[in-house]
Amino acid sequence: MSHTETSTRITTTTTTRATLVKRTGVSKVLSKKDSIRKSSKKRRASTTIILLSNVNKTKKNFNDNIQKTIITTEYNHQHQNDDRTKLVDSQSQPSPPALLSPSVDIESNYLINTSLPPSSSSQSLSSYIEPDSNSPFRNSASPRESLTSIASEKVLLMSSEQQSSVVQPLLTDLYQISMAYAYWKPNKHHELATFDLYFRKNPFGGEYTLFAGLDECLKFVRNYKFHPSDIEYLRASLPSYIESEFYDYLSALDMNDIKIYAVPEGTVVFPRLPLMRIEGPIIKTQLLETTLLTLVNYASLVATNAARFRSAIGADKTLLEFGLRRAQGPDGGLSASKYCYLGGFDGTSNVLAGKLYGIPIKGTHAHAYVNSYECMDDLSQRDLCDRITGERRPFSDLCLHYLNEIGPALKILPEETNKGELAAFISYAIAFPTNFLALVDTYDVLKSGVPNFLAVARALHECNYQAVGLRLDSGDLAYLSLEVRAKFHEVSKKLNLPYMEHFTIVASNDINEDTLVSLEKQGHSIDSFGIGTHLVTCQKQPALGCVYKLVELAGSPRIKVSQDIEKVTIPGRKNLYRLYGHDGKALCDVLTRIDESAPEAAIRMLSRHPFSEQKRAYVTPTSVKSLYNLYWADGEIRYSLPTLKQIRTYVREQIDELRKDHKRDLNPTPYKVSVTDDLFQFMHKLWMKSVPIGELE
Amino acid sequence: MSHTETSTRITTTTTTRATLVKRTGVSKVLSKKDSIRKSSKKRRASTTIILLSNVNKTKKNFNDNIQKTIITTEYNHQHQNDDRTKLVDSQSQPSPPALLSPSVDIESNYLINTSLPPSSSSQSLSSYIEPDSNSPFRNSASPRESLTSIASEKVLLMSSEQQSSVVQPLLTDLYQISMAYAYWKPNKHHELATFDLYFRKNPFGGEYTLFAGLDECLKFVRNYKFHPSDIEYLRASLPSYIESEFYDYLSALDMNDIKIYAVPEGTVVFPRLPLMRIEGPIIKTQLLETTLLTLVNYASLVATNAARFRSAIGADKTLLEFGLRRAQGPDGGLSASKYCYLGGFDGTSNVLAGKLYGIPIKGTHAHAYVNSYECMDDLSQRDLCDRITGERRPFSDLCLHYLNEIGPALKILPEETNKGELAAFISYAIAFPTNFLALVDTYDVLKSGVPNFLAVARALHECNYQAVGLRLDSGDLAYLSLEVRAKFHEVSKKLNLPYMEHFTIVASNDINEDTLVSLEKQGHSIDSFGIGTHLVTCQKQPALGCVYKLVELAGSPRIKVSQDIEKVTIPGRKNLYRLYGHDGKALCDVLTRIDESAPEAAIRMLSRHPFSEQKRAYVTPTSVKSLYNLYWADGEIRYSLPTLKQIRTYVREQIDELRKDHKRDLNPTPYKVSVTDDLFQFMHKLWMKSVPIGELE
Repeated sequence: MSHTETSTRITTTTTTRATLVKRTGVSKVLSKKDSIRKSSKKRRASTTIILLSNVNKTKKNFNDNIQKTIITTEYNHQHQNDDRTKLVDSQSQPSPPALLSPSVDIESNYLINTSLPPSSSSQSLSSYIEPDSNSPFRNSASPRESLTSIASEKVLLMSSEQQSSVVQPLLTDLYQISMAYAYWKPNKHHELATFDLYFRKNPFGGEYTLFAGLDECLKFVRNYKFHPSDIEYLRASLPSYIESEFYDYLSALDMNDIKIYAVPEGTVVFPRLPLMRIEGPIIKTQLLETTLLTLVNYASLVATNAARFRSAIGADKTLLEFGLRRAQGPDGGLSASKYCYLGGFDGTSNVLAGKLYGIPIKGTHAHAYVNSYECMDDLSQRDLCDRITGERRPFSDLCLHYLNEIGPALKILPEETNKGELAAFISYAIAFPTNFLALVDTYDVLKSGVPNFLAVARALHECNYQAVGLRLDSGDLAYLSLEVRAKFHEVSKKLNLPYMEHFTIVASNDINEDTLVSLEKQGHSIDSFGIGTHLVTCQKQPALGCVYKLVELAGSPRIKVSQDIEKVTIPGRKNLYRLYGHDGKALCDVLTRIDESAPEAAIRMLSRHPFSEQKRAYVTPTSVKSLYNLYWADGEIRYSLPTLKQIRTYVREQIDELRKDHKRDLNPTPYKVSVTDDLFQFMHKLWMKSVPIGELE
Repeated sequence: MSHTETSTRITTTTTTRATLVKRTGVSKVLSKKDSIRKSSKKRRASTTIILLSNVNKTKKNFNDNIQKTIITTEYNHQHQNDDRTKLVDSQSQPSPPALLSPSVDIESNYLINTSLPPSSSSQSLSSYIEPDSNSPFRNSASPRESLTSIASEKVLLMSSEQQSSVVQPLLTDLYQISMAYAYWKPNKHHELATFDLYFRKNPFGGEYTLFAGLDECLKFVRNYKFHPSDIEYLRASLPSYIESEFYDYLSALDMNDIKIYAVPEGTVVFPRLPLMRIEGPIIKTQLLETTLLTLVNYASLVATNAARFRSAIGADKTLLEFGLRRAQGPDGGLSASKYCYLGGFDGTSNVLAGKLYGIPIKGTHAHAYVNSYECMDDLSQRDLCDRITGERRPFSDLCLHYLNEIGPALKILPEETNKGELAAFISYAIAFPTNFLALVDTYDVLKSGVPNFLAVARALHECNYQAVGLRLDSGDLAYLSLEVRAKFHEVSKKLNLPYMEHFTIVASNDINEDTLVSLEKQGHSIDSFGIGTHLVTCQKQPALGCVYKLVELAGSPRIKVSQDIEKVTIPGRKNLYRLYGHDGKALCDVLTRIDESAPEAAIRMLSRHPFSEQKRAYVTPTSVKSLYNLYWADGEIRYSLPTLKQIRTYVREQIDELRKDHKRDLNPTPYKVSVTDDLFQFMHKLWMKSVPIGELE
């Protein structure tokens, strides 16, 4: 059942091999300059790329520290429609097929190979361009070759960066360092501690959360090493009487003797569940706190947000993340792209996220492109070659002709559409004839954008191509999408081209979760949503409050009581189980003390609310799942890590396991997180002991 | 008046010299293990650090690309209280004084040297530890040597990273790349374009915004270069018929022929002001869009948020940024620290931000540290040496003794304070006797935390140290701070130690702008605020909607009209002026066409609302300031960039220039952003021309 069982184990080879698959080929799309430019394509080009790959630290079999990976790539530019795939490894030898299996390079597991079908090594990659089943054209390459979904299908990605360079030991709060010294000075730092990482409240008024960020936490722990300049900075920052041996200790410090138990990345989780249990010398477990929280908090928050957007609009619409420009800086944007995909989005506009994580990238053009043409005279290319015959056609004239022809059906004046916009559409269609998706709201959607789009779409049809659709970026999206669909209907009837009724309508104007819910209620005809600001900033709740609390030290349990009752911690090392009913849906989660036996299927047990004495229930689960894996121990990642795409699939399964009433939009039912009676008694005894008794006057 | 005039010009030396200033010295704070550990300090240690410094690309006088900076640092560990400063440059020669002036290394201007006083080269840096003027101790090192403010005063920082490694050309939306191809294919890409970067609405319901992120934009433009692996990725992602020469073009592309005009970083700005005007070939100016927006949007938003927090609480309180764990991942946290400091915060908990940007770092200990002690028996070190005499004192016994002594004055039962908490405080005070600041809410603030803190503070006093204060992290902060201050008052009276009444009270529990406003209204006794979540996530408005719009192409103005009127752009290249009244306060901003003459002091002019025909006013300014500088041209940064600390000062001046009614909390008055009559007519003519006329049925 666990998704991780199906993923492959970490390879122990000492060489990181990045292999590049390249599809080349020259289509029949020709323009004026093509013949001149083409000549150079016949030359055989050869490129050598040298990368400094990231450090694969602490993997015992790795003889690192910095590996040089030399990638030699050969391109064959030969004949038109000659699609070839040539795989070359680091010695310029043909790669063995194994290099293309998903197990190739689990070390950089999110960076490469997330979506290549297993059999691809022996197959021309061009076959992975999804053919359009509605296409009237069968005898050639797809008339709608997508700009947007090829990368993840066609290339094994490589990258010089596995993780942002700022993820390093100094990316922490100063008090972690001062506490480290205060532990170290009286020689207390060796004491074995256990910390729980958890949150106290589900975000967005919902009743579930997705756990994400684990992969990055494990990489951080694996690479944990103070740089000499870090030590210098600390020496200069801390008081002068700090003992020098402390800095020697920090310089040599690694995370090889800590253990990390965690629930698998992508698991649906709830308040108070320890998502990670970190065990080891207190100085080390303490030093990890801030960075682990930083890596888990936003990742889980935005993944949950994405899942909620998905849930609001249903599985059949396309959701695209467009948030880079509104994120918390560059890395915030990358995290958003990655974890929105994990949470259920279909793609991103962020090209670097596509390169680094293998996420499908999407996008066509902006208003500026439309504005860059003022009139038809601005067009310097006006012809397009027929996709099938190769014949040169007077494309811009065709567009004007069809604009006049469809004007009456659209009830507009053809001479009143903006001719700068039309020129821009024509130019864009000549550049991307298989992927024409036009932004139609620069001047006026219904009076200018849609007629211009349809004229170009009709002319493309004349040249044996098929337009993709249009994008709305302002106005009343529900109303406009229905109006636009009605125009499509009119024109497809008039032209007797049924596929035109089904052109894709993309919408992208300040959309949030409530907009999606409302659109579903009022009716709309949007196929695809580009969502930025409110997705990546998590407008409804911009932070998840994960905390990291000491629950055991030197074998003795610790509790943190507080005047705020929800800040009280559940003490001791604990295990974590999910109990399922006969319908396969999750019933409740149960925390047990570490040495208690696990709950068993068909055995009735008493589950208790951790804080309220009166809240108790008997549960007889149909099945029980232990939620923890031991991910890090003895200086290595012990559990195979799934790919981003595998996690995405697992997320969907996880959400399906949840009863509908926990997921509904309005007043969802809280999911029960309970403790065993044993843990309850244990906790409350310690709690009483820790709270001082006052004296009334 | 412009702050940039006072900052230094870019140096043209070809060597990046990072110089390290190190203060060493052994205090008299001794513990059991000290004598053993100390022996090794007498050895003379020498460390060599080799850094690969970042690429200083495109600076004409730089013979880079990758420079190796070798830093040799010598440490002198000699005698107690022998504080020395030894400056060693890259050839191990004493640095010339010029190396320490703020002009040393403007290339890495935010990374080093942001706060070192100009005269420091010839002076022992130890004198920059601020002496505590209230201190009863005068004959030795300060009894409150701060953990937290030394770094920025004492060390010239170095760093191997000038900018996050993810800031690169692929950090963009896919449509920028597809538009680039669509511009390139018909040979339109050379056309000269002008883009304006601006926002449409002030954030947080306020009426002003701080412009930030310019420095990072300029570094991005300077380093703009596609990596061969980027090109490979694009080849694989875009349709196969993309002409190969396009990729050659991208490979060779740099930003040397574009120009960037901008308002200085830290300027107070308003909706519709073009903060940056980017001119150059359309393909290049287009390719910059997303990354510039990413770098400006969050920087400006969080800087503005910080300024508002500062404004809510007044200039005399200390504001600390604690948001790393709740930011949008690692880089979000770094950006938050940097731009909160710029906006008026005093320090951060983020150690890496301290190292990279020279921001003072702050922090003591967490609940986990308190929880790590269960009882007094857990103490393995119990003695502390007197700061003046060096005599070993039974510190933990002293603490217990004073706890009993002050119990009655605090009206608590000394035996009921949590003794694990007391042990933790004792241990922390032994580690940091000059910097004891205790977190007092782990068990019970008034019954346990405060009495334990005061007992340790009194014992520290006995050993000739002075505690700093305490931190509250839960409960009613206004009430608790007043109660705690009252206890301080009682105890300081009883002990006849007046300074104890003024112990610092730090508060840090989910504080937002409204909390600060409310605290000021209801009365409190908090000196210092640690603020995380709501500061860095900008809870009230998590994104600033900066946009990037084409306003001119090939010498002809462009307008983007829209069904949403606020989305209409102001066409053409424009200049930007701020008009001041006789009181030195800003009256309004005026946009002019590029070839109009500038507004002049004492000359009456007509200013107009850009959209509403009826809204007009005559203005006679007392003085006029042109807001643009040309920052980037001919492949180099043309204007000297101020340090982060200089920008922070400039921000304060800028906010002072603004009338109070624009800044007030409730219903602030909008500041007027106007256009000249010439620009108004020009814009509206173009607008009419661009909107299609419909046909009523």
